[in-house]
Amino acid sequence: MLKTKIADIRKEVLQWKKEGLSVGLVPTMGALHQGHLSLIKQSLKKCDRTVVSVFVNPIQFGPAEDLDKYPRTLEADLELCKNAGVDIVFAPSQNEMYENTPHPNPPPQGGREQSRLSNDFFTYVIPPFFYTDKLCGKSRPGHFDGVCTVVMKLFNIVQPDYAFFGQKDAQQLVIIRKMVQDLNIPIEIVSCPIVRDENGLALSSRNQYLSEEGRKQALVLNKILTNIRACYNKGIQDVKALGETAFAFLNEHHELEYLEFVDKNTLENKTKADDDTLVLIAVKTDNVRLIDNCFMK
Amino acid sequence: MLKTKIADIRKEVLQWKKEGLSVGLVPTMGALHQGHLSLIKQSLKKCDRTVVSVFVNPIQFGPAEDLDKYPRTLEADLELCKNAGVDIVFAPSQNEMYENTPHPNPPPQGGREQSRLSNDFFTYVIPPFFYTDKLCGKSRPGHFDGVCTVVMKLFNIVQPDYAFFGQKDAQQLVIIRKMVQDLNIPIEIVSCPIVRDENGLALSSRNQYLSEEGRKQALVLNKILTNIRACYNKGIQDVKALGETAFAFLNEHHELEYLEFVDKNTLENKTKADDDTLVLIAVKTDNVRLIDNCFMK
Repeated sequence: MLKTKIADIRKEVLQWKKEGLSVGLVPTMGALHQGHLSLIKQSLKKCDRTVVSVFVNPIQFGPAEDLDKYPRTLEADLELCKNAGVDIVFAPSQNEMYENTPHPNPPPQGGREQSRLSNDFFTYVIPPFFYTDKLCGKSRPGHFDGVCTVVMKLFNIVQPDYAFFGQKDAQQLVIIRKMVQDLNIPIEIVSCPIVRDENGLALSSRNQYLSEEGRKQALVLNKILTNIRACYNKGIQDVKALGETAFAFLNEHHELEYLEFVDKNTLENKTKADDDTLVLIAVKTDNVRLIDNCFMK
Repeated sequence: MLKTKIADIRKEVLQWKKEGLSVGLVPTMGALHQGHLSLIKQSLKKCDRTVVSVFVNPIQFGPAEDLDKYPRTLEADLELCKNAGVDIVFAPSQNEMYENTPHPNPPPQGGREQSRLSNDFFTYVIPPFFYTDKLCGKSRPGHFDGVCTVVMKLFNIVQPDYAFFGQKDAQQLVIIRKMVQDLNIPIEIVSCPIVRDENGLALSSRNQYLSEEGRKQALVLNKILTNIRACYNKGIQDVKALGETAFAFLNEHHELEYLEFVDKNTLENKTKADDDTLVLIAVKTDNVRLIDNCFMK
Protein backbone atom coordinates (compact mmCIF):
# COMPACT_ATOMS: atom_id res chain seq x y z
CA MET A 1 0.00 0.00 0.00
CA LEU A 2 2.99 2.33 0.56
CA LYS A 3 4.60 3.63 -2.63
CA THR A 4 7.66 5.83 -2.64
CA LYS A 5 8.51 5.90 -6.34
CA ILE A 6 6.74 7.96 -8.98
CA ALA A 7 7.04 5.19 -11.55
CA ASP A 8 5.40 2.68 -9.20
CA ILE A 9 2.35 4.74 -8.36
CA ARG A 10 1.90 5.73 -12.00
CA LYS A 11 1.83 2.08 -13.00
CA GLU A 12 -0.82 1.28 -10.41
CA VAL A 13 -3.01 4.26 -11.29
CA LEU A 14 -2.72 3.49 -15.00
CA GLN A 15 -4.10 0.02 -14.31
CA TRP A 16 -7.04 1.50 -12.39
CA LYS A 17 -7.77 3.88 -15.25
CA LYS A 18 -7.75 1.00 -17.71
CA GLU A 19 -10.37 -0.66 -15.54
CA GLY A 20 -12.43 2.53 -15.67
CA LEU A 21 -12.09 3.24 -11.95
CA SER A 22 -12.26 6.80 -10.60
CA VAL A 23 -9.35 8.05 -8.54
CA GLY A 24 -9.30 10.47 -5.61
CA LEU A 25 -6.18 12.21 -4.29
CA VAL A 26 -5.80 13.62 -0.78
CA PRO A 27 -2.54 15.62 -0.75
CA THR A 28 -1.09 15.98 2.76
CA MET A 29 2.15 16.72 4.57
CA GLY A 30 1.48 13.82 6.93
CA ALA A 31 1.02 14.05 10.69
CA LEU A 32 -2.51 13.02 9.88
CA HIS A 33 -5.38 13.93 12.19
CA GLN A 34 -9.16 13.76 12.12
CA GLY A 35 -9.23 16.71 9.69
CA HIS A 36 -7.26 14.72 7.14
CA LEU A 37 -9.40 11.70 7.91
CA SER A 38 -12.53 13.63 6.95
CA LEU A 39 -10.91 14.36 3.56
CA ILE A 40 -9.96 10.72 3.18
CA LYS A 41 -13.48 9.57 4.02
CA GLN A 42 -14.91 11.96 1.43
CA SER A 43 -12.60 10.53 -1.19
CA LEU A 44 -13.37 6.93 -0.24
CA LYS A 45 -17.05 7.72 -0.57
CA LYS A 46 -16.79 9.56 -3.88
CA CYS A 47 -14.09 7.57 -5.71
CA ASP A 48 -13.36 3.95 -6.55
CA ARG A 49 -9.75 4.33 -5.47
CA THR A 50 -8.09 6.72 -3.03
CA VAL A 51 -4.47 7.88 -2.92
CA VAL A 52 -3.15 9.82 0.08
CA SER A 53 0.13 11.60 -0.55
CA VAL A 54 2.41 12.30 2.39
CA PHE A 55 5.18 14.74 1.53
CA VAL A 56 6.65 17.57 3.56
CA ASN A 57 7.30 19.89 0.65
CA PRO A 58 10.47 21.91 1.28
CA ILE A 59 9.78 24.59 -1.32
CA GLN A 60 6.69 25.86 0.49
CA PHE A 61 8.58 26.59 3.71
CA GLY A 62 10.37 29.87 4.31
CA PRO A 63 13.93 29.86 5.65
CA ALA A 64 12.78 30.87 9.15
CA GLU A 65 9.93 28.38 9.16
CA ASP A 66 9.44 24.97 10.74
CA LEU A 67 10.56 22.64 7.92
CA ASP A 68 12.98 20.74 10.12
CA LYS A 69 10.73 20.38 13.12
CA TYR A 70 7.53 19.79 11.13
CA PRO A 71 6.04 16.57 12.59
CA ARG A 72 6.82 13.43 10.61
CA THR A 73 4.80 10.41 11.70
CA LEU A 74 4.75 8.12 8.67
CA GLU A 75 4.13 4.92 10.59
CA ALA A 76 1.08 6.30 12.34
CA ASP A 77 -0.08 7.89 9.07
CA LEU A 78 0.12 4.53 7.32
CA GLU A 79 -1.84 2.88 10.12
CA LEU A 80 -4.56 5.53 9.93
CA CYS A 81 -4.79 5.21 6.14
CA LYS A 82 -4.83 1.42 6.25
CA ASN A 83 -7.62 1.36 8.81
CA ALA A 84 -9.60 3.88 6.79
CA GLY A 85 -9.34 1.77 3.63
CA VAL A 86 -6.99 3.96 1.58
CA ASP A 87 -5.61 2.15 -1.48
CA ILE A 88 -2.20 3.79 -1.77
CA VAL A 89 -0.14 6.07 0.45
CA PHE A 90 2.37 7.88 -1.76
CA ALA A 91 5.28 9.05 0.37
CA PRO A 92 8.17 10.03 -1.90
CA SER A 93 11.57 11.24 -0.74
CA GLN A 94 12.63 14.81 -1.36
CA ASN A 95 15.04 13.48 -3.93
CA GLU A 96 12.29 11.60 -5.77
CA MET A 97 10.24 14.80 -6.07
CA TYR A 98 13.05 17.23 -6.86
CA GLU A 99 15.78 15.17 -8.49
CA ASN A 100 17.86 16.79 -11.20
CA THR A 101 17.31 20.07 -9.43
CA PRO A 102 20.44 21.79 -8.24
CA HIS A 103 18.54 24.20 -5.99
CA PRO A 104 15.05 23.11 -5.00
CA ASN A 105 16.01 24.50 -1.63
CA PRO A 106 16.65 27.09 -0.21
CA PRO A 107 13.10 28.21 -0.61
CA PRO A 108 11.98 31.79 -1.21
CA GLN A 109 13.94 34.29 0.87
CA GLY A 110 11.15 36.78 1.46
CA GLY A 111 9.59 39.44 -0.71
CA ARG A 112 8.07 39.16 -4.12
CA GLU A 113 11.33 39.56 -5.99
CA GLN A 114 13.42 37.32 -3.79
CA SER A 115 10.87 34.55 -3.94
CA ARG A 116 11.46 34.46 -7.67
CA LEU A 117 15.12 33.66 -7.24
CA SER A 118 14.39 30.16 -6.02
CA ASN A 119 13.29 29.63 -9.58
CA ASP A 120 16.72 29.69 -11.22
CA PHE A 121 16.82 25.99 -12.00
CA PHE A 122 13.30 24.74 -11.54
CA THR A 123 9.94 25.28 -13.23
CA TYR A 124 7.39 26.84 -10.88
CA VAL A 125 3.65 27.24 -11.02
CA ILE A 126 3.03 30.77 -9.78
CA PRO A 127 -0.48 31.71 -8.70
CA PRO A 128 -1.58 35.33 -9.22
CA PHE A 129 -0.19 38.00 -6.89
CA PHE A 130 -3.65 39.35 -6.25
CA TYR A 131 -4.36 36.04 -4.45
CA THR A 132 -1.00 35.57 -2.76
CA ASP A 133 0.12 39.07 -1.69
CA LYS A 134 -2.22 39.01 1.32
CA LEU A 135 -3.27 36.96 4.33
CA CYS A 136 -0.83 34.10 4.88
CA GLY A 137 1.06 35.03 1.72
CA LYS A 138 2.13 38.31 3.29
CA SER A 139 4.14 36.66 6.06
CA ARG A 140 5.01 33.60 3.98
CA PRO A 141 6.32 34.98 0.66
CA GLY A 142 6.70 32.27 -1.95
CA HIS A 143 4.67 29.83 0.14
CA PHE A 144 1.85 29.46 -2.36
CA ASP A 145 4.28 29.23 -5.28
CA GLY A 146 5.72 26.18 -3.54
CA VAL A 147 2.25 24.82 -2.81
CA CYS A 148 0.98 25.20 -6.37
CA THR A 149 4.15 23.72 -7.81
CA VAL A 150 4.04 20.60 -5.66
CA VAL A 151 0.28 20.20 -6.10
CA MET A 152 0.73 20.40 -9.86
CA LYS A 153 3.43 17.73 -9.62
CA LEU A 154 1.20 15.48 -7.52
CA PHE A 155 -1.70 16.04 -9.92
CA ASN A 156 0.49 14.99 -12.84
CA ILE A 157 1.92 12.00 -10.99
CA VAL A 158 -1.39 10.62 -9.70
CA GLN A 159 -3.74 12.01 -12.36
CA PRO A 160 -6.77 11.83 -10.10
CA ASP A 161 -10.35 12.64 -11.10
CA TYR A 162 -10.92 14.39 -7.77
CA ALA A 163 -8.61 16.07 -5.29
CA PHE A 164 -9.63 16.88 -1.72
CA PHE A 165 -8.53 19.96 0.23
CA GLY A 166 -9.56 21.26 3.65
CA GLN A 167 -11.41 24.53 4.17
CA LYS A 168 -9.02 25.03 7.09
CA ASP A 169 -6.42 26.34 4.63
CA ALA A 170 -8.93 28.65 3.00
CA GLN A 171 -6.52 30.82 1.02
CA GLN A 172 -4.77 27.73 -0.30
CA LEU A 173 -8.09 26.28 -1.40
CA VAL A 174 -9.07 29.42 -3.33
CA ILE A 175 -5.63 29.52 -4.97
CA ILE A 176 -5.75 25.85 -5.96
CA ARG A 177 -9.19 26.35 -7.50
CA LYS A 178 -7.86 29.38 -9.38
CA MET A 179 -4.88 27.36 -10.64
CA VAL A 180 -7.17 24.56 -11.81
CA GLN A 181 -9.37 27.06 -13.64
CA ASP A 182 -6.53 29.09 -15.20
CA LEU A 183 -4.53 26.09 -16.37
CA ASN A 184 -7.53 23.94 -17.35
CA ILE A 185 -6.49 21.11 -15.07
CA PRO A 186 -8.94 18.25 -15.65
CA ILE A 187 -9.49 17.57 -11.95
CA GLU A 188 -12.44 18.42 -9.72
CA ILE A 189 -11.46 20.10 -6.46
CA VAL A 190 -13.57 19.03 -3.49
CA SER A 191 -13.36 21.01 -0.25
CA CYS A 192 -14.21 19.68 3.18
CA PRO A 193 -15.29 21.68 6.23
CA ILE A 194 -12.96 22.47 9.11
CA VAL A 195 -12.84 19.77 11.78
CA ARG A 196 -12.58 21.07 15.37
CA ASP A 197 -11.79 19.46 18.68
CA GLU A 198 -14.34 19.41 21.50
CA ASN A 199 -13.27 22.92 22.53
CA GLY A 200 -13.60 24.40 19.06
CA LEU A 201 -9.90 24.44 18.14
CA ALA A 202 -9.46 23.81 14.42
CA LEU A 203 -7.42 20.64 13.95
CA SER A 204 -3.92 21.23 12.58
CA SER A 205 -0.71 19.25 12.55
CA ARG A 206 0.91 22.29 14.13
CA ASN A 207 -1.34 21.95 17.23
CA GLN A 208 1.24 19.37 18.34
CA TYR A 209 3.61 22.25 19.06
CA LEU A 210 1.21 23.73 21.67
CA SER A 211 1.71 23.41 25.43
CA GLU A 212 -1.34 22.73 27.60
CA GLU A 213 -1.64 26.44 28.32
CA GLY A 214 -1.09 27.18 24.64
CA ARG A 215 -4.03 24.99 23.67
CA LYS A 216 -6.23 27.13 25.90
CA GLN A 217 -4.93 30.38 24.43
CA ALA A 218 -5.39 28.95 20.94
CA LEU A 219 -9.15 28.84 21.40
CA VAL A 220 -9.17 32.58 20.81
CA LEU A 221 -9.27 32.13 17.02
CA ASN A 222 -12.56 30.27 16.98
CA LYS A 223 -14.00 32.51 19.70
CA ILE A 224 -13.30 35.63 17.64
CA LEU A 225 -14.73 34.10 14.46
CA THR A 226 -17.83 32.80 16.22
CA ASN A 227 -18.45 36.18 17.77
CA ILE A 228 -17.97 37.99 14.46
CA ARG A 229 -20.49 35.74 12.81
CA ALA A 230 -22.94 36.33 15.66
CA CYS A 231 -22.51 40.09 15.28
CA TYR A 232 -23.04 39.81 11.51
CA ASN A 233 -26.20 37.82 12.07
CA LYS A 234 -27.41 40.59 14.38
CA GLY A 235 -27.02 43.00 11.47
CA ILE A 236 -23.52 44.47 11.78
CA GLN A 237 -21.97 44.56 8.31
CA ASP A 238 -19.26 47.17 8.68
CA VAL A 239 -16.00 45.27 8.51
CA LYS A 240 -14.15 47.70 10.74
CA ALA A 241 -16.76 47.39 13.46
CA LEU A 242 -16.79 43.61 13.14
CA GLY A 243 -13.00 43.50 13.29
CA GLU A 244 -12.88 45.57 16.44
CA THR A 245 -14.94 43.00 18.32
CA ALA A 246 -11.83 40.80 18.24
CA PHE A 247 -9.94 42.88 20.77
CA ALA A 248 -12.21 41.77 23.60
CA PHE A 249 -10.75 38.27 23.20
CA LEU A 250 -7.08 38.99 22.66
CA ASN A 251 -4.61 39.17 25.53
CA GLU A 252 -0.84 39.48 26.02
CA HIS A 253 -0.36 35.84 24.97
CA HIS A 254 -1.71 36.53 21.50
CA GLU A 255 0.03 38.14 18.59
CA LEU A 256 -2.61 38.93 15.96
CA GLU A 257 -1.09 38.56 12.49
CA TYR A 258 -4.22 39.33 10.52
CA LEU A 259 -7.99 39.37 10.71
CA GLU A 260 -9.45 39.97 7.29
CA PHE A 261 -12.77 39.98 5.50
CA VAL A 262 -12.61 38.89 1.86
CA ASP A 263 -14.78 37.58 -0.93
CA LYS A 264 -14.80 33.80 -0.61
CA ASN A 265 -14.05 33.24 -4.31
CA THR A 266 -11.75 36.10 -5.31
CA LEU A 267 -10.13 37.02 -1.95
CA GLU A 268 -11.01 40.64 -2.70
CA ASN A 269 -11.08 42.72 0.48
CA LYS A 270 -14.51 43.75 1.72
CA THR A 271 -15.50 46.91 3.53
CA LYS A 272 -19.03 45.64 4.11
CA ALA A 273 -19.60 41.99 4.97
CA ASP A 274 -22.18 39.91 3.13
CA ASP A 275 -23.13 36.25 2.88
CA ASP A 276 -20.24 35.60 0.47
CA THR A 277 -17.69 36.99 2.91
CA LEU A 278 -14.97 34.79 4.33
CA VAL A 279 -13.32 35.88 7.58
CA LEU A 280 -9.76 34.70 8.12
CA ILE A 281 -7.58 35.01 11.16
CA ALA A 282 -3.96 34.21 11.98
CA VAL A 283 -2.64 34.41 15.53
CA LYS A 284 0.67 33.50 17.04
CA THR A 285 0.39 32.12 20.54
CA ASP A 286 2.77 30.00 22.58
CA ASN A 287 5.23 30.54 19.68
CA VAL A 288 2.93 28.66 17.31
CA ARG A 289 1.34 30.33 14.31
CA LEU A 290 -2.29 29.23 13.97
CA ILE A 291 -4.92 30.03 11.36
CA ASP A 292 -8.68 29.65 11.24
CA ASN A 293 -11.56 30.98 9.17
CA CYS A 294 -15.30 30.93 8.73
CA PHE A 295 -17.93 31.92 6.21
CA MET A 296 -20.43 34.57 7.22
CA LYS A 297 -23.12 32.16 6.22
CA MET B 1 -13.00 18.51 -37.54
CA LEU B 2 -12.71 22.11 -36.31
CA LYS B 3 -13.34 22.58 -32.59
CA THR B 4 -13.30 25.95 -30.90
CA LYS B 5 -14.61 25.06 -27.45
CA ILE B 6 -12.60 23.41 -24.69
CA ALA B 7 -15.59 21.35 -23.56
CA ASP B 8 -16.10 19.98 -27.08
CA ILE B 9 -12.55 18.80 -27.65
CA ARG B 10 -12.39 17.30 -24.16
CA LYS B 11 -15.49 15.25 -24.88
CA GLU B 12 -14.02 13.93 -28.11
CA VAL B 13 -10.63 13.09 -26.60
CA LEU B 14 -12.29 11.39 -23.61
CA GLN B 15 -14.10 9.11 -26.06
CA TRP B 16 -10.81 8.25 -27.80
CA LYS B 17 -9.21 7.46 -24.45
CA LYS B 18 -12.09 5.17 -23.56
CA GLU B 19 -11.42 3.32 -26.79
CA GLY B 20 -7.77 2.98 -25.79
CA LEU B 21 -6.50 5.17 -28.63
CA SER B 22 -3.26 7.13 -28.32
CA VAL B 23 -3.41 10.89 -28.88
CA GLY B 24 -0.81 13.23 -30.39
CA LEU B 25 -0.87 17.01 -30.04
CA VAL B 26 0.85 19.43 -32.40
CA PRO B 27 0.62 22.89 -30.79
CA THR B 28 0.92 25.71 -33.33
CA MET B 29 0.12 29.38 -33.81
CA GLY B 30 -1.25 28.60 -37.28
CA ALA B 31 0.09 30.00 -40.57
CA LEU B 32 1.06 26.40 -41.14
CA HIS B 33 3.93 25.51 -43.45
CA GLN B 34 5.92 22.41 -44.36
CA GLY B 35 7.71 22.57 -41.01
CA HIS B 36 4.43 22.18 -39.17
CA LEU B 37 3.41 19.52 -41.66
CA SER B 38 6.46 17.46 -40.73
CA LEU B 39 5.34 17.59 -37.08
CA ILE B 40 1.82 16.61 -38.09
CA LYS B 41 3.10 13.69 -40.15
CA GLN B 42 5.18 12.47 -37.22
CA SER B 43 2.12 12.55 -35.00
CA LEU B 44 -0.07 10.80 -37.57
CA LYS B 45 2.55 8.07 -37.82
CA LYS B 46 3.05 7.64 -34.08
CA CYS B 47 -0.47 8.14 -32.69
CA ASP B 48 -3.95 6.80 -33.34
CA ARG B 49 -5.42 10.29 -33.25
CA THR B 50 -3.86 13.68 -33.95
CA VAL B 51 -4.95 17.09 -32.69
CA VAL B 52 -3.44 20.27 -34.14
CA SER B 53 -4.01 23.37 -32.04
CA VAL B 54 -4.04 26.75 -33.76
CA PHE B 55 -3.86 29.62 -31.30
CA VAL B 56 -1.95 32.88 -31.51
CA ASN B 57 -1.19 33.14 -27.80
CA PRO B 58 -1.22 36.79 -26.73
CA ILE B 59 0.67 36.29 -23.48
CA GLN B 60 3.84 35.16 -25.23
CA PHE B 61 4.12 38.37 -27.27
CA GLY B 62 5.86 41.45 -25.91
CA PRO B 63 4.15 44.84 -26.25
CA ALA B 64 6.43 45.89 -29.15
CA GLU B 65 6.09 42.55 -30.91
CA ASP B 66 4.03 41.37 -33.85
CA LEU B 67 0.89 40.04 -32.14
CA ASP B 68 -1.45 42.08 -34.30
CA LYS B 69 0.25 41.44 -37.61
CA TYR B 70 1.10 37.80 -36.90
CA PRO B 71 -0.28 35.87 -39.90
CA ARG B 72 -3.68 34.27 -39.35
CA THR B 73 -4.68 31.86 -42.09
CA LEU B 74 -7.19 29.53 -40.46
CA GLU B 75 -8.92 28.49 -43.66
CA ALA B 76 -5.68 27.41 -45.32
CA ASP B 77 -4.56 25.77 -42.08
CA LEU B 78 -7.75 23.72 -41.94
CA GLU B 79 -7.28 22.66 -45.55
CA LEU B 80 -3.70 21.56 -44.92
CA CYS B 81 -4.73 19.61 -41.80
CA LYS B 82 -7.68 18.00 -43.53
CA ASN B 83 -5.56 16.86 -46.45
CA ALA B 84 -2.93 15.50 -44.09
CA GLY B 85 -5.49 13.44 -42.19
CA VAL B 86 -5.58 15.36 -38.89
CA ASP B 87 -8.50 14.34 -36.67
CA ILE B 88 -9.17 17.63 -34.90
CA VAL B 89 -8.02 21.20 -35.35
CA PHE B 90 -8.51 23.02 -32.05
CA ALA B 91 -8.71 26.76 -32.72
CA PRO B 92 -10.10 28.48 -29.63
CA SER B 93 -10.77 32.20 -29.30
CA GLN B 94 -8.67 34.31 -26.96
CA ASN B 95 -11.70 34.54 -24.71
CA GLU B 96 -12.08 30.77 -24.59
CA MET B 97 -8.47 30.38 -23.44
CA TYR B 98 -8.30 33.31 -21.04
CA GLU B 99 -11.86 33.90 -19.90
CA ASN B 100 -12.40 35.05 -16.33
CA THR B 101 -9.07 36.80 -16.56
CA PRO B 102 -9.19 40.53 -16.15
CA HIS B 103 -5.66 40.99 -17.52
CA PRO B 104 -4.29 38.22 -19.70
CA ASN B 105 -3.02 41.08 -21.81
CA PRO B 106 -0.98 43.26 -21.70
CA PRO B 107 1.81 40.74 -21.70
CA PRO B 108 5.13 41.17 -19.91
CA GLN B 109 6.50 44.67 -20.23
CA GLY B 110 10.18 43.77 -20.25
CA GLY B 111 12.61 42.80 -17.55
CA ARG B 112 12.42 39.98 -15.07
CA GLU B 113 10.47 41.98 -12.52
CA GLN B 114 8.06 43.60 -14.91
CA SER B 115 7.27 40.31 -16.57
CA ARG B 116 5.97 39.14 -13.22
CA LEU B 117 3.43 41.93 -13.11
CA SER B 118 1.35 40.37 -15.85
CA ASN B 119 0.73 37.70 -13.27
CA ASP B 120 -1.54 39.72 -10.99
CA PHE B 121 -4.70 37.88 -11.90
CA PHE B 122 -3.59 34.74 -13.69
CA THR B 123 -1.68 31.59 -12.79
CA TYR B 124 1.54 31.26 -14.78
CA VAL B 125 3.92 28.41 -15.37
CA ILE B 126 7.37 29.96 -15.08
CA PRO B 127 10.34 28.04 -16.45
CA PRO B 128 13.70 28.51 -14.70
CA PHE B 129 15.59 31.75 -15.24
CA PHE B 130 18.73 29.88 -16.05
CA TYR B 131 16.95 28.67 -19.19
CA THR B 132 15.09 31.87 -20.06
CA ASP B 133 17.50 34.70 -19.22
CA LYS B 134 19.46 34.13 -22.43
CA LEU B 135 19.16 33.71 -26.20
CA CYS B 136 15.62 34.67 -27.31
CA GLY B 137 14.56 35.18 -23.71
CA LYS B 138 16.93 38.13 -23.41
CA SER B 139 15.16 40.20 -26.03
CA ARG B 140 11.75 38.69 -25.34
CA PRO B 141 11.31 38.89 -21.56
CA GLY B 142 8.34 36.91 -20.35
CA HIS B 143 8.03 35.13 -23.71
CA PHE B 144 8.75 31.65 -22.36
CA ASP B 145 6.51 32.23 -19.35
CA GLY B 146 3.70 32.79 -21.84
CA VAL B 147 4.73 29.78 -23.90
CA CYS B 148 4.90 27.40 -20.93
CA THR B 149 1.61 28.67 -19.56
CA VAL B 150 -0.30 28.15 -22.80
CA VAL B 151 1.39 24.80 -23.48
CA MET B 152 0.42 23.62 -20.00
CA LYS B 153 -3.15 24.72 -20.72
CA LEU B 154 -3.18 22.89 -24.05
CA PHE B 155 -1.70 19.80 -22.42
CA ASN B 156 -4.45 19.83 -19.81
CA ILE B 157 -7.18 20.46 -22.36
CA VAL B 158 -6.12 17.81 -24.87
CA GLN B 159 -4.32 15.39 -22.51
CA PRO B 160 -2.24 13.89 -25.29
CA ASP B 161 0.16 10.97 -24.92
CA TYR B 162 2.67 12.69 -27.21
CA ALA B 163 3.31 16.32 -28.09
CA PHE B 164 5.36 17.41 -31.09
CA PHE B 165 7.65 20.43 -31.21
CA GLY B 166 10.07 21.65 -33.86
CA GLN B 167 13.81 21.82 -33.34
CA LYS B 168 13.56 25.21 -35.08
CA ASP B 169 12.55 26.77 -31.77
CA ALA B 170 15.42 25.06 -29.95
CA GLN B 171 15.31 27.06 -26.74
CA GLN B 172 11.56 26.55 -26.50
CA LEU B 173 12.03 22.80 -26.96
CA VAL B 174 14.61 22.56 -24.16
CA ILE B 175 12.38 24.63 -21.87
CA ILE B 176 9.29 22.52 -22.62
CA ARG B 177 11.26 19.35 -21.88
CA LYS B 178 12.46 20.89 -18.62
CA MET B 179 8.90 21.84 -17.68
CA VAL B 180 7.68 18.32 -18.42
CA GLN B 181 10.46 16.87 -16.27
CA ASP B 182 10.11 19.32 -13.37
CA LEU B 183 6.32 19.12 -13.16
CA ASN B 184 6.08 15.37 -13.94
CA ILE B 185 3.79 15.97 -16.89
CA PRO B 186 2.75 12.55 -18.22
CA ILE B 187 3.40 13.39 -21.85
CA GLU B 188 6.26 12.38 -24.12
CA ILE B 189 7.81 15.29 -26.01
CA VAL B 190 8.87 14.45 -29.56
CA SER B 191 11.07 16.84 -31.48
CA CYS B 192 11.30 17.10 -35.25
CA PRO B 193 14.22 18.41 -37.30
CA ILE B 194 14.22 21.84 -38.91
CA VAL B 195 12.66 21.93 -42.36
CA ARG B 196 14.38 24.25 -44.85
CA ASP B 197 13.45 25.62 -48.24
CA GLU B 198 15.53 24.79 -51.31
CA ASN B 199 17.95 27.60 -50.43
CA GLY B 200 18.48 26.49 -46.87
CA LEU B 201 16.21 29.03 -45.18
CA ALA B 202 14.59 27.50 -42.12
CA LEU B 203 10.82 27.55 -42.56
CA SER B 204 8.99 29.99 -40.27
CA SER B 205 5.62 31.66 -40.33
CA ARG B 206 7.49 34.93 -40.02
CA ASN B 207 9.21 34.36 -43.38
CA GLN B 208 5.99 35.77 -44.85
CA TYR B 209 7.13 39.19 -43.67
CA LEU B 210 10.26 39.06 -45.87
CA SER B 211 10.61 40.92 -49.15
CA GLU B 212 12.30 39.17 -52.06
CA GLU B 213 15.59 40.83 -51.15
CA GLY B 214 14.98 40.00 -47.50
CA ARG B 215 14.66 36.31 -48.32
CA LYS B 216 18.14 36.43 -49.87
CA GLN B 217 19.63 38.24 -46.88
CA ALA B 218 17.92 35.77 -44.58
CA LEU B 219 20.05 32.94 -45.93
CA VAL B 220 22.88 34.27 -43.80
CA LEU B 221 21.68 32.37 -40.74
CA ASN B 222 22.04 28.94 -42.29
CA LYS B 223 25.28 29.95 -44.02
CA ILE B 224 26.86 30.95 -40.73
CA LEU B 225 25.70 27.79 -38.98
CA THR B 226 26.84 25.52 -41.80
CA ASN B 227 30.24 27.16 -41.85
CA ILE B 228 30.62 26.88 -38.08
CA ARG B 229 29.83 23.19 -38.22
CA ALA B 230 32.35 22.74 -41.01
CA CYS B 231 35.01 24.52 -38.95
CA TYR B 232 34.17 22.38 -35.92
CA ASN B 233 34.50 19.26 -38.02
CA LYS B 234 37.92 20.48 -39.11
CA GLY B 235 38.93 20.58 -35.46
CA ILE B 236 38.21 24.11 -34.25
CA GLN B 237 36.60 23.89 -30.83
CA ASP B 238 37.23 27.31 -29.37
CA VAL B 239 33.86 29.02 -29.28
CA LYS B 240 35.30 32.49 -29.70
CA ALA B 241 37.15 31.46 -32.84
CA LEU B 242 34.09 29.67 -34.21
CA GLY B 243 31.91 32.69 -33.47
CA GLU B 244 34.23 35.05 -35.30
CA THR B 245 33.80 33.11 -38.52
CA ALA B 246 30.29 34.60 -38.67
CA PHE B 247 31.48 38.08 -39.51
CA ALA B 248 32.53 37.02 -43.00
CA PHE B 249 28.86 36.51 -43.82
CA LEU B 250 27.25 39.49 -42.14
CA ASN B 251 26.68 42.77 -43.97
CA GLU B 252 24.94 46.09 -43.34
CA HIS B 253 21.52 44.46 -43.89
CA HIS B 254 22.01 42.19 -40.90
CA GLU B 255 21.61 42.99 -37.25
CA LEU B 256 23.08 40.12 -35.27
CA GLU B 257 21.11 39.66 -32.05
CA TYR B 258 23.01 36.67 -30.77
CA LEU B 259 25.20 33.77 -31.80
CA GLU B 260 25.68 31.40 -28.92
CA PHE B 261 27.13 28.00 -28.16
CA VAL B 262 25.32 26.09 -25.42
CA ASP B 263 24.83 22.59 -24.09
CA LYS B 264 21.92 21.08 -26.00
CA ASN B 265 20.18 19.83 -22.83
CA THR B 266 20.92 22.46 -20.19
CA LEU B 267 21.53 25.59 -22.31
CA GLU B 268 24.72 26.12 -20.31
CA ASN B 269 27.16 28.33 -22.20
CA LYS B 270 30.19 26.60 -23.67
CA THR B 271 33.68 27.96 -24.11
CA LYS B 272 34.78 24.84 -25.99
CA ALA B 273 32.43 23.22 -28.47
CA ASP B 274 31.78 19.47 -28.38
CA ASP B 275 29.35 17.03 -29.97
CA ASP B 276 26.64 18.02 -27.44
CA THR B 277 26.89 21.67 -28.38
CA LEU B 278 23.98 23.50 -29.91
CA VAL B 279 24.68 26.69 -31.87
CA LEU B 280 21.89 29.23 -31.99
CA ILE B 281 21.62 32.41 -33.99
CA ALA B 282 19.16 35.30 -34.18
CA VAL B 283 19.44 37.96 -36.87
CA LYS B 284 17.21 40.86 -37.75
CA THR B 285 17.09 41.52 -41.46
CA ASP B 286 14.55 43.38 -43.57
CA ASN B 287 12.92 44.33 -40.22
CA VAL B 288 12.16 40.67 -39.54
CA ARG B 289 13.65 38.82 -36.60
CA LEU B 290 14.74 35.33 -37.65
CA ILE B 291 16.22 32.46 -35.66
CA ASP B 292 18.01 29.25 -36.62
CA ASN B 293 20.20 26.66 -34.95
CA CYS B 294 22.14 23.47 -35.49
CA PHE B 295 23.80 20.75 -33.50
CA MET B 296 27.54 20.31 -33.84
CA LYS B 297 26.87 16.71 -34.59
